Amino acid sequence: MNDTDNICAISTPQGNGAIAVIRVDGNEVFSLMDGIFEPAGINKAIKEQAPRKMHFGKIMDGDQVLDEVLVVPFHAPHSYTGNNMVEISCHGSRYIQQKMLQLLINHGARTADPGEFTMRAFHNGKMDLAQAEGVADLIASTSSASHKLAMQQMRGGFSSEIKNLREKLLHFISLIELELDFSDEDVEFADRTQLKELLEEIDRLISKLLNSFELGNAIKNGFPVAITGNTNVGKSTLLNRLLNEEKAIVTDIAGTTRDVIEDVINIQGIEFRFIDTAGIRDTREKIESIGIERTFSQIDKAQIVLLLVDATQPTETVTHTIQKVEDRMKGTQKKLLVLLNKVDQVSTEDEVVETEKAIQKVIHTEDELLRISAKQGTNIDKLTSTLLNSVNYSPLDQNEIMVTNVRHYEALKHAYDALQRAREGMESGLSSDLFVMDVRQVIHYLGEITGQITTDEVLGNIFKHFCIGK
Amino acid sequence: MNDTDNICAISTPQGNGAIAVIRVDGNEVFSLMDGIFEPAGINKAIKEQAPRKMHFGKIMDGDQVLDEVLVVPFHAPHSYTGNNMVEISCHGSRYIQQKMLQLLINHGARTADPGEFTMRAFHNGKMDLAQAEGVADLIASTSSASHKLAMQQMRGGFSSEIKNLREKLLHFISLIELELDFSDEDVEFADRTQLKELLEEIDRLISKLLNSFELGNAIKNGFPVAITGNTNVGKSTLLNRLLNEEKAIVTDIAGTTRDVIEDVINIQGIEFRFIDTAGIRDTREKIESIGIERTFSQIDKAQIVLLLVDATQPTETVTHTIQKVEDRMKGTQKKLLVLLNKVDQVSTEDEVVETEKAIQKVIHTEDELLRISAKQGTNIDKLTSTLLNSVNYSPLDQNEIMVTNVRHYEALKHAYDALQRAREGMESGLSSDLFVMDVRQVIHYLGEITGQITTDEVLGNIFKHFCIGK
Repeated sequence: MNDTDNICAISTPQGNGAIAVIRVDGNEVFSLMDGIFEPAGINKAIKEQAPRKMHFGKIMDGDQVLDEVLVVPFHAPHSYTGNNMVEISCHGSRYIQQKMLQLLINHGARTADPGEFTMRAFHNGKMDLAQAEGVADLIASTSSASHKLAMQQMRGGFSSEIKNLREKLLHFISLIELELDFSDEDVEFADRTQLKELLEEIDRLISKLLNSFELGNAIKNGFPVAITGNTNVGKSTLLNRLLNEEKAIVTDIAGTTRDVIEDVINIQGIEFRFIDTAGIRDTREKIESIGIERTFSQIDKAQIVLLLVDATQPTETVTHTIQKVEDRMKGTQKKLLVLLNKVDQVSTEDEVVETEKAIQKVIHTEDELLRISAKQGTNIDKLTSTLLNSVNYSPLDQNEIMVTNVRHYEALKHAYDALQRAREGMESGLSSDLFVMDVRQVIHYLGEITGQITTDEVLGNIFKHFCIGK
Repeated sequence: MNDTDNICAISTPQGNGAIAVIRVDGNEVFSLMDGIFEPAGINKAIKEQAPRKMHFGKIMDGDQVLDEVLVVPFHAPHSYTGNNMVEISCHGSRYIQQKMLQLLINHGARTADPGEFTMRAFHNGKMDLAQAEGVADLIASTSSASHKLAMQQMRGGFSSEIKNLREKLLHFISLIELELDFSDEDVEFADRTQLKELLEEIDRLISKLLNSFELGNAIKNGFPVAITGNTNVGKSTLLNRLLNEEKAIVTDIAGTTRDVIEDVINIQGIEFRFIDTAGIRDTREKIESIGIERTFSQIDKAQIVLLLVDATQPTETVTHTIQKVEDRMKGTQKKLLVLLNKVDQVSTEDEVVETEKAIQKVIHTEDELLRISAKQGTNIDKLTSTLLNSVNYSPLDQNEIMVTNVRHYEALKHAYDALQRAREGMESGLSSDLFVMDVRQVIHYLGEITGQITTDEVLGNIFKHFCIGK
């Protein structure tokens, strides 16, 4: 892996715009720029120009002016990557952007791989691996909750705590290894009480982080919600209603038109992802008994289940359906929300109250019942606030640190298992050399999270999902 | 028109990317930023930070970190607009970009209109109107030739020459007006010989610019080319062949994927726009005599006409077709290129030579004949170089200044007409007060080009075509 050759990429989004920013990074980046940049006024080499300052001038392609630009030199190690680096702000035409890259390539740069600038920053110690992953998550985040978690991760998050505890563990383990060298003399350099406390502290941190994963992952990817119920009960009407409410809250500002991600609803900064709802909406088959496997598999994948029942149907049909779903959900942590739909089409309030009483008898205490009219929009606000309450996460929680990344979760899981072995070994008076092996495992897996232990393959997998120019 | 209130816009292309740049401009822009920017390190007000330097820090939305950013302050008048200005480089997620704008709006900025930054630059005398139009053309340019013309215009182009001559004319006219004040005394402050020379000089410049418009406009918008010929003669095969050749020369670099603009072919930096070729390609009707009006109207709109004839058809049919087209083109400046297609399907060379001889007899001397096979790709390179030669423009011409803008052309036309009246008046000894009126007209129209004379309506029309954030 070459971390110092000259690389270049367009760092701003693709397309035409007022400005585009091109990043050029590498050992020889200043002399490369001297070959194509004609600074206005002071005719100095780029590396002698004031760092981190915008210098106006022309980019020359031979004797032709390609563009008038602002160039910012960053001197190693005071740059994003830690290398010498230059940012060129040029006019944002596709033509100029493409020509600019061609020119840089002709002068000895190569196009950067996705995430290569950030990978260099990682290699140069500007950030750890979890922070680098936070950068990618930050750029990908689409809701205030996922944005906040990514921001925390990018700014250090649990990394520093993990690094700190890992350091301490390394210190202890080197003392114990020293004891092993002097094993004939039966000395004890490492204070066992302190070590035990440290292992407990690490246990608490890892457990807390592991527990945060389910919520963290749901916040990052959206809470999985199933909308289910018999045919014609109003599922698609409800979904459209929810999606439209959402569109109404998103303020459209020129220049930020949002990709409509169908079937993802953002409620107060938290995203709810509706599972396989296209399937439900398309179905023409009668699923009177909700017996079909697909509906159940949607329930299995969901964290929250919205079960629509039809208030105009006989009470027995309604309670039968609910009973089936309750059976399926037994023993899970899922939340059931029974929605008594079409209440506007029932002639008397008494009838609705009767049905509600019957439903209350079959649903579990922690589940909820709400009367709605998807068509009229009745109680949709109550439904969204119930959804919000059921995720048990407040975006106002400033300092809660969560694991959102599967790779981190897996490493933590491995570290946790090794830690349990180490703790048990310590309790049962296992010999120090075996105990050391388990602790070494803990150290290894904690190091994987922050990237102190890593392989090219792991890095390749992480950075290939980055965007170009980052 | 308010030119000093705080405006903001995303200046980079729409979408997700590594970096986005947000511009904020206005009198109070520094105090606005002080409310949301927490600089790392030196805790100074933004206006006290080093100008044109990137300052790292956090953008705060209340007590939440919205993003870690680089902020560059520009102090009036040393900015693009001439006002106080700030550029924020943030992470390029749509979510962050949208939130950033919302935050700026909540702190008293409004979203900028298209081109509003450049309009402010114009109002503050940072550039004249023709230069501002050059900025928009530069961003819109898609070929090296159109890019070069836009660059010249943005960098001053003919503006300075026009401004200079207009100044001289103003000087003379004020002297003549002074004479009129002293009309009883029969004095002559303005040297008539010098004035006559100045009018001639202006005439030469305007004539040169007017003459450049046809070519300049074609370079900017692409040279109009008609591909015509009888049904099944191979028009669509030829067009596809040309479009594919083009794709082969465009180097695709990740991050610059080019919108495929169908039926525009870029040959060595010059664009050729194929007129209404979709119509030709779709037609099912037999147009043996090319008698139909649509074909003729394509010819009327084109500057270059590619007439395909079928080498396997009887020579009389071929020459008849060519004769019809030649008749239509009589008296125009259009260039005809007869393409003898399907030469690969003719059994002997002699036959082809025979047909060629017959064709040479009916075509005009300035027209050209080329044998090709659209299917096999024979002589397509010759065709493209012939196209290139027929536009009579070398992109290597460094300093040729051209008018590409219809608005400029019209103003020049008006100025020219007034100038002729003035010169005739001078020759025929017209009274000074009438002569002055004509010269005032010349001054007026020249001033329209550079924007020294303008109206809100004219400005509105110009800047509404800009992109947001420029």
